[in-house]
Amino acid sequence: MFSGAQVALYPMTDDFVRVILGSLSALDPYRSRFRIETDDLSTLLVGPPPDLFPALRDLHVAASRGGLHCVMHATVSRGCPGEPDDPICTPIEGRTAETPLSERVEAALEAVQSAAPTGQDVAAQLSLYPLGASHHMDEIYGCIDLMKRSGVFGRAKNFCTTLRGDAGPVFATLGEAFLRFGSPEGHVAMDLTVSANSPSPA
Amino acid sequence: MFSGAQVALYPMTDDFVRVILGSLSALDPYRSRFRIETDDLSTLLVGPPPDLFPALRDLHVAASRGGLHCVMHATVSRGCPGEPDDPICTPIEGRTAETPLSERVEAALEAVQSAAPTGQDVAAQLSLYPLGASHHMDEIYGCIDLMKRSGVFGRAKNFCTTLRGDAGPVFATLGEAFLRFGSPEGHVAMDLTVSANSPSPA
Repeated sequence: MFSGAQVALYPMTDDFVRVILGSLSALDPYRSRFRIETDDLSTLLVGPPPDLFPALRDLHVAASRGGLHCVMHATVSRGCPGEPDDPICTPIEGRTAETPLSERVEAALEAVQSAAPTGQDVAAQLSLYPLGASHHMDEIYGCIDLMKRSGVFGRAKNFCTTLRGDAGPVFATLGEAFLRFGSPEGHVAMDLTVSANSPSPA
Repeated sequence: MFSGAQVALYPMTDDFVRVILGSLSALDPYRSRFRIETDDLSTLLVGPPPDLFPALRDLHVAASRGGLHCVMHATVSRGCPGEPDDPICTPIEGRTAETPLSERVEAALEAVQSAAPTGQDVAAQLSLYPLGASHHMDEIYGCIDLMKRSGVFGRAKNFCTTLRGDAGPVFATLGEAFLRFGSPEGHVAMDLTVSANSPSPA
């Protein structure tokens, strides 16, 4: 298994460099479990799938402190056949290819309901891509069912779905969407945007 | 066929609202061919696939004028089975399911070489997802071959590929990647980030 994300922060302020650098300490508790590399376009996080969305949540909440309009984008991937296996990326526990879609939705909802709030509201927009599977739309519809029942569902849009609410349950829902749909060992990608403190009406 | 993008601009300045609103006139020449809808997360563009990347290019170049660090993200999609056919989205001309991968790469290179420069340098990062295809990695490798020979290849990164150069050939390469790989009527998605004037070293 190889899993991780290319993540970038976009603080809409003249002071964006200071905001980005100042938020990176939010990743400190995760550093021992992740390989982290940065260039001018994004930061690569490679590590265990279950820790990925908590790390993204803490990074975005840190960068959005003080009411600043800040967007995070992440290209998230697991199981890509073009990437080498990496022992840092442990497989997803408790999932087999045989677990029915409905059971996976219920288990995901339970995890979302126990997510602790962060005090930071966010709006998220995601597209989930289970690749190489002949039934990729079934997996996508299962994931949409989870999101509609997550308590943080926003709306369906063309090409994506939005979530709105506290970053705690929003990132928990995103993590469950990534972990529980598509084949457990298969190639799954997510295109994710999370926005805090936008001045535009929703 | 249904094709389009959810696109967002992130100008890294206190004045981001003015920059975004000021760049929207770059879409005027395309408005008659696109359905355009905006909310707080992104702007939907639905229309003919060949016009999509020129519209994205003109929007990003307009927003990046004057040396401002400005990032654009787009979730691009065509042929999604969950979307209705839309007569505004004309099929891709001159492509059939039988055109061999190598011929498609050559035709794409020809289109890239004739792209006019804009005077604005950009760095782009993209992931291409041909969905529901059993040979999705072959199509991805064909697309990577195009990018390596495009004259604006940056490097391969985990989960994505980067392009660097003038926005003209960069967006031409992106458009060809989107139009020529994956089944002509199939579901293909792209996760795209384009950055101008970053203060970080590449």
